[in-house]
Amino acid sequence: MSNTIALYPLSNFTFSTKEAQPEEDPSVSARLQRLQNNYEDFGMRRTVEGILVVHDHGHPHILMLQICKCFLQVVRAGFTPGDYLKPGEDEIEGLKRRLDERLAPPTDSRQFNSSHGVDNEWEIGDCLAQWWRPNFETFMYPFIPAHITKPKECKKLFLVQMPERKVLAVPKNMKLLAIPLFELSTMPHGSYGPQLSAIPHLLSRYNFIYQ
Amino acid sequence: MSNTIALYPLSNFTFSTKEAQPEEDPSVSARLQRLQNNYEDFGMRRTVEGILVVHDHGHPHILMLQICKCFLQVVRAGFTPGDYLKPGEDEIEGLKRRLDERLAPPTDSRQFNSSHGVDNEWEIGDCLAQWWRPNFETFMYPFIPAHITKPKECKKLFLVQMPERKVLAVPKNMKLLAIPLFELSTMPHGSYGPQLSAIPHLLSRYNFIYQ
Repeated sequence: MSNTIALYPLSNFTFSTKEAQPEEDPSVSARLQRLQNNYEDFGMRRTVEGILVVHDHGHPHILMLQICKCFLQVVRAGFTPGDYLKPGEDEIEGLKRRLDERLAPPTDSRQFNSSHGVDNEWEIGDCLAQWWRPNFETFMYPFIPAHITKPKECKKLFLVQMPERKVLAVPKNMKLLAIPLFELSTMPHGSYGPQLSAIPHLLSRYNFIYQ
Repeated sequence: MSNTIALYPLSNFTFSTKEAQPEEDPSVSARLQRLQNNYEDFGMRRTVEGILVVHDHGHPHILMLQICKCFLQVVRAGFTPGDYLKPGEDEIEGLKRRLDERLAPPTDSRQFNSSHGVDNEWEIGDCLAQWWRPNFETFMYPFIPAHITKPKECKKLFLVQMPERKVLAVPKNMKLLAIPLFELSTMPHGSYGPQLSAIPHLLSRYNFIYQ
């Protein structure tokens, strides 16, 4: 029965804004250079992302962050400057910290919320996928390609089980969007890229109960 | 640790042949007509497929059946005439029965094998995916599309954990092929179709140990 998951309606969640947060490196080449520099110091980068699922009128939707009107991403740890997991840091704790940074209300309102019975915790579920970056290049694969003994990055996607109600605060320079699974699955491949397009497949084994 | 799975080398498995088995309906329209007739009698069709994973020199491969040189499929219950799960039949038992029909050696050699310590059992692992057929048409989706209350077929894919050694017997009119994950993942989408192309994603959360 662990494949059965309760989904709550989008309208149960309250969205507010908070201060802007630093964005990703502006250029792909700057990002890859930073990955290479960090690799020399710390070894393989470990990135952790959360898949937040809700429903809207009985259809599953994924909450995704849109940054500077161009990137769409699931909520992640590890891509913005200095923010991937530290060497030895636990991946679940790192993901929770990152989800808090990105989406938790400021501390004072969290105290207000928790005294009013609103859940501030994150419940991290199954690992849904792993993506491997074999070289200091943009390509990633859902396995370690042949002849690669030292991948440069491993990204793990985790299901995040949303509670019945939650208050989320989105940085001013970002937007939180609810994208239907259907759209991720049927739009031409390029629209969302291979990683986001795979999400409907990764979730298909679950039986969702629409509350 | 349930995400860690031992894979054994392709060379550990012994392949023989057995009598030819009936193939699928020759035409797509005949297949869809049969689906419709059965739906009227028994309701939604339940299909079960097994994903058999081995490795070749440290790279995961999927064992797939090629029928009449045109269809490639994972080992399945439910597509050949009269062979989908019966109403009320347990899906795990049904899949085991189907795997036996397709790939187990004839009974006399099975008795010989088991007296020589060769494993005749099938170990069925996690459900990896579900595919839904909304209409009497070829399209299937990894979720139930909007406004569909009565899907016509639900197909479940299960991981089949291959033991260290096993004797498999392949019907004469079919071929068992070992396809590398890499090929499923990187060939143009049309080559293997959306269902087979998704398999590398479905398996990516596992950490394989190559024995």
